[in-house]
Amino acid sequence: MFLVINSGSSSIKFKLFEEKNLKKVLSWIVEKIWSKDSFLDWEFKDIQWETKDNFYDYKTALEEILETIKSCGIKLNEIKAVWHRVVHWWEKFQDSIIINDKVIKAIKDCEELAPIHNKINLECILICKNLLPETKQIAVFDTAFSQTMEEENYIYAIPYKYYKKYKIRKYGFHGISHEFVYNKLIQNTEFKMQKKKDLKVITCHVGNGASISAIKNGKVIQNSMWMTPLEWLIMWTRSGDIDPAIIPFLMKKEKMSAEQVENILNKESGLKWLREKSSDLRDIIVAYKKWDKKASMIIKMYVNRIIKYIWAYTALLWWLDVIVMTAWVLERSDLIRKLVCEKLDWLGIKLDNKKNIEGWKEGEISSKDSKVKVRVIPTNEELMIAKEVKKIIWN
Amino acid sequence: MFLVINSGSSSIKFKLFEEKNLKKVLSWIVEKIWSKDSFLDWEFKDIQWETKDNFYDYKTALEEILETIKSCGIKLNEIKAVWHRVVHWWEKFQDSIIINDKVIKAIKDCEELAPIHNKINLECILICKNLLPETKQIAVFDTAFSQTMEEENYIYAIPYKYYKKYKIRKYGFHGISHEFVYNKLIQNTEFKMQKKKDLKVITCHVGNGASISAIKNGKVIQNSMWMTPLEWLIMWTRSGDIDPAIIPFLMKKEKMSAEQVENILNKESGLKWLREKSSDLRDIIVAYKKWDKKASMIIKMYVNRIIKYIWAYTALLWWLDVIVMTAWVLERSDLIRKLVCEKLDWLGIKLDNKKNIEGWKEGEISSKDSKVKVRVIPTNEELMIAKEVKKIIWN
Repeated sequence: MFLVINSGSSSIKFKLFEEKNLKKVLSWIVEKIWSKDSFLDWEFKDIQWETKDNFYDYKTALEEILETIKSCGIKLNEIKAVWHRVVHWWEKFQDSIIINDKVIKAIKDCEELAPIHNKINLECILICKNLLPETKQIAVFDTAFSQTMEEENYIYAIPYKYYKKYKIRKYGFHGISHEFVYNKLIQNTEFKMQKKKDLKVITCHVGNGASISAIKNGKVIQNSMWMTPLEWLIMWTRSGDIDPAIIPFLMKKEKMSAEQVENILNKESGLKWLREKSSDLRDIIVAYKKWDKKASMIIKMYVNRIIKYIWAYTALLWWLDVIVMTAWVLERSDLIRKLVCEKLDWLGIKLDNKKNIEGWKEGEISSKDSKVKVRVIPTNEELMIAKEVKKIIWN
Repeated sequence: MFLVINSGSSSIKFKLFEEKNLKKVLSWIVEKIWSKDSFLDWEFKDIQWETKDNFYDYKTALEEILETIKSCGIKLNEIKAVWHRVVHWWEKFQDSIIINDKVIKAIKDCEELAPIHNKINLECILICKNLLPETKQIAVFDTAFSQTMEEENYIYAIPYKYYKKYKIRKYGFHGISHEFVYNKLIQNTEFKMQKKKDLKVITCHVGNGASISAIKNGKVIQNSMWMTPLEWLIMWTRSGDIDPAIIPFLMKKEKMSAEQVENILNKESGLKWLREKSSDLRDIIVAYKKWDKKASMIIKMYVNRIIKYIWAYTALLWWLDVIVMTAWVLERSDLIRKLVCEKLDWLGIKLDNKKNIEGWKEGEISSKDSKVKVRVIPTNEELMIAKEVKKIIWN
């Protein structure tokens, strides 16, 4: 058996799989960690079992998870490995690696490139090493899938020495998710690679974090998150694209350090700023439906950014066959999907309203005569990570 | 008579107009100011007269200009006003204003929002006040034309207090140029506003500075330069869009101040970095034609950014009637125009190769069956400024 840990900026998902058939045995989700409303939900054999409140940190959460494993009659030594999704791994194609001290140092070194994520990832790794000292810890990297980008798509127009010295370049994120939904797509008979040469796909991962990938024949051409997971789309607490000159400007005016401004852009911006009352997109959608003016502006900004990148990437791909929508916002919100598709009509996209409203299932939501197909494919990063298991031989 | 001064980051244009018919009497251009290769060209009654070298600063240049005016038999007291193009003027619709101490202070206060430009503009204003103390100085603002943007298109997803406190928002630049070519376009019979409802135009001003505007019924919906003239397209010495997290990253790593990083992004980046040998796009194009690998990558990056914004703005406009190309790169380089149009074919754009190569004249370069028209319209910011004269009564 092996445990997969997918820790994000505000939630952590854990799944326990059987190794032979990748069957999920147990799963947990801790939401809103670090806040007073935090809670842990868990499932055993697909039945939801319990909700526990107040998980302020990763250690408490992990201890509770090990307890529930034992309470389900599974011995901890049956867990042969813990797989960790790690966000940043420099410019390496490597999908996964067994974690030793050298790897820990390298993950730590990347911290500056993904300030929210790598730190959390590392914290989880160290806690697991401590709680399960006999178990192998393995890292799976979120930047690997986008490593196919060409130089003109990953280089910044800043002095080259900074790329050489510090690896400042575009990376691309949510790779595990983009790869998962892309693989799901091409397994679908209609889109089988062998049938379609030059398959051009845009995968949109829009959850609390958000990024869009342009994929041609299975290779990422561009991804909207670049050096750090700060750039582009508006996210839960992150600003997305801003004028870079705002940073030195605020530093001077507010007498802030670089770290303080970074913190504002990473943790105090995005939807969190836009909607001071509640930064939860679900609440903003409710207000939008009641004709709230501010909520309407936020939804417009939010949707406009998504559309902007879909159009821009269509230009980069020089045509488009399929748009894949994934992660919780696009999986669950028929409103956001509708607003996005409406503005893509000039690309020949037509939405099937009935299918769209049926929602949160895997399937096509574009109409039969739509020139570009639109498909909702729920992401499953943990299952994607679990598939990595085959690549590493352990024991 | 009145003098128009259009000072940019590397060149200044001066034009002396007659007030009644806006006829140009004299014109000067100082290129590569502050460098050893700087020179001044001037024209009198449309005949080029002289080239002088080594104009290291604005004062020397302005003194020489006044000398040539006198040598042409024009008395300095015949100059009733000097009109200055000023880049940044907060969120004001105002096109022009007579410069007094209050205005000077306000222009100075904007300096941080346009670090290269407003400083130079102000320097020229003060020199002129000194050299021509009896003459009115008037400012014309480059940010005015884009003030029609809606809130969802000018706000950043950062805490709102910074907008309230410091006016951090998107502004839009090259307004004088975008307005000039737009007005020229609609004077053309085919595009006359009264004939076409909902005229949707993208104006591309691509010179040493570069920006793209989406214009609907004469109103700017979005402009690709936002808070400061640093964002988006790759420019001569400016990075264009980068991950904002690069700034705090470089500050920490290189122990630099915010100003130093700002300086790198404004003056040491863009084409200047990309092509260390020569940052002149003309030289890069020559190398590209000789199959130079680096030059090829740079041209791809450069063109890709232009295309990205044309597509993105087509989405924002929800259709497109005309693309206008202006400023020296798009006025003079048939190669860049061709590469841009090639990647717009999915928008129904077809280039007329013959017309494109004929180049640097005003006219349509798209073929007759092109769904979207493409037109080259040389910009003339000085003439646009001159037209402002009517709006201010002086004497």
